[in-house]
Amino acid sequence: MPDFAEPLARLITEFKRLPGIGQKSAQRLAFHVLRAGREDAEHLAQAILDVKDKLGLCRVCNNISESELCLFCRDPSRDPTVVCVVEEAHNIVGIETTRGYAGGYHVLHGSLSPLRGIGPESLKIKGLVERIGRREIPKVILATNPTVEGEATAVYLSRLLKPLGVKVTRIAMGIPVGSDIEFADEVTLSQAMGGRREM
Amino acid sequence: MPDFAEPLARLITEFKRLPGIGQKSAQRLAFHVLRAGREDAEHLAQAILDVKDKLGLCRVCNNISESELCLFCRDPSRDPTVVCVVEEAHNIVGIETTRGYAGGYHVLHGSLSPLRGIGPESLKIKGLVERIGRREIPKVILATNPTVEGEATAVYLSRLLKPLGVKVTRIAMGIPVGSDIEFADEVTLSQAMGGRREM
Repeated sequence: MPDFAEPLARLITEFKRLPGIGQKSAQRLAFHVLRAGREDAEHLAQAILDVKDKLGLCRVCNNISESELCLFCRDPSRDPTVVCVVEEAHNIVGIETTRGYAGGYHVLHGSLSPLRGIGPESLKIKGLVERIGRREIPKVILATNPTVEGEATAVYLSRLLKPLGVKVTRIAMGIPVGSDIEFADEVTLSQAMGGRREM
Repeated sequence: MPDFAEPLARLITEFKRLPGIGQKSAQRLAFHVLRAGREDAEHLAQAILDVKDKLGLCRVCNNISESELCLFCRDPSRDPTVVCVVEEAHNIVGIETTRGYAGGYHVLHGSLSPLRGIGPESLKIKGLVERIGRREIPKVILATNPTVEGEATAVYLSRLLKPLGVKVTRIAMGIPVGSDIEFADEVTLSQAMGGRREM
């Protein structure tokens, strides 16, 4: 990048390291910062550092949190008898947008992947087992991703948790709402057929 | 955003203020920063601040620069007898990618827009006139945008500079290479017809 002054070239390089940001987007963002007020740039820089400094994991569910208990664990209106298990903290956002779930969460921070050397000990599973043993959580929803790794994790957890006397359910896989059966892949369609419900 | 811890929600808001970044992208970026190392976050934050602190305008051409003279103005291999006039500093990047131009630049930092109250006095035109009067710049290329404002600016500059004895040219407007005549709008096609060359 000999076309840019050094600080500008460096900001472009930094932006390019972010996911989904290519050369053109990075340039656009860098020039935006350059044109923006000094205060706006400070706010952005501070927000980036604050995320690293002020956030940790919830003591109970391992969700991202700025206090010992996360937003969901300290909310008394949430149903304490059901826990939804997700791979990553950002998966919670998706489930919350449905507005149809009001229980607790448990974040695994990953999924089982023997090929990449990620076994059960690498995931936050111990805390989940302890929660089930300690408190009364009769229902567990497995909302790991519909991938090979997510499915393997769900099967593993199901075998681990069922003997503890909890009801374990897995979110449904099938054709997405609004799509066309014609464009569904065979695995998805096969899941949709297998998981069909009476109506 | 009650689904996120406060520092995370704030970073998402800050990212959303950047051009081309929507809610989902902002979340993705924020979670990336959260997962990244503290050092990576520091580099990004510092790069943002450095762009505001270390950059100014080139004394000669008004390009973004970290020293008194920009990369192009202090490069002795550039042809000093021709100046390419652009609206914004980032337009230089596009022209440089052609690798076909090796002259100097002049950045106007805007274009004439009577409707938005932007007259000649709001643009960096004075310096350009001074450069032409002071030094020997016999050729000026007008590379303002092919918009109403950019075209008005080009016409204004052409009338202003020609009496000073410089040769003023305007970049060609026409159908873009690789596109289809069928999809060219009528104004572009009319420009392409009017600007046709013998072959």
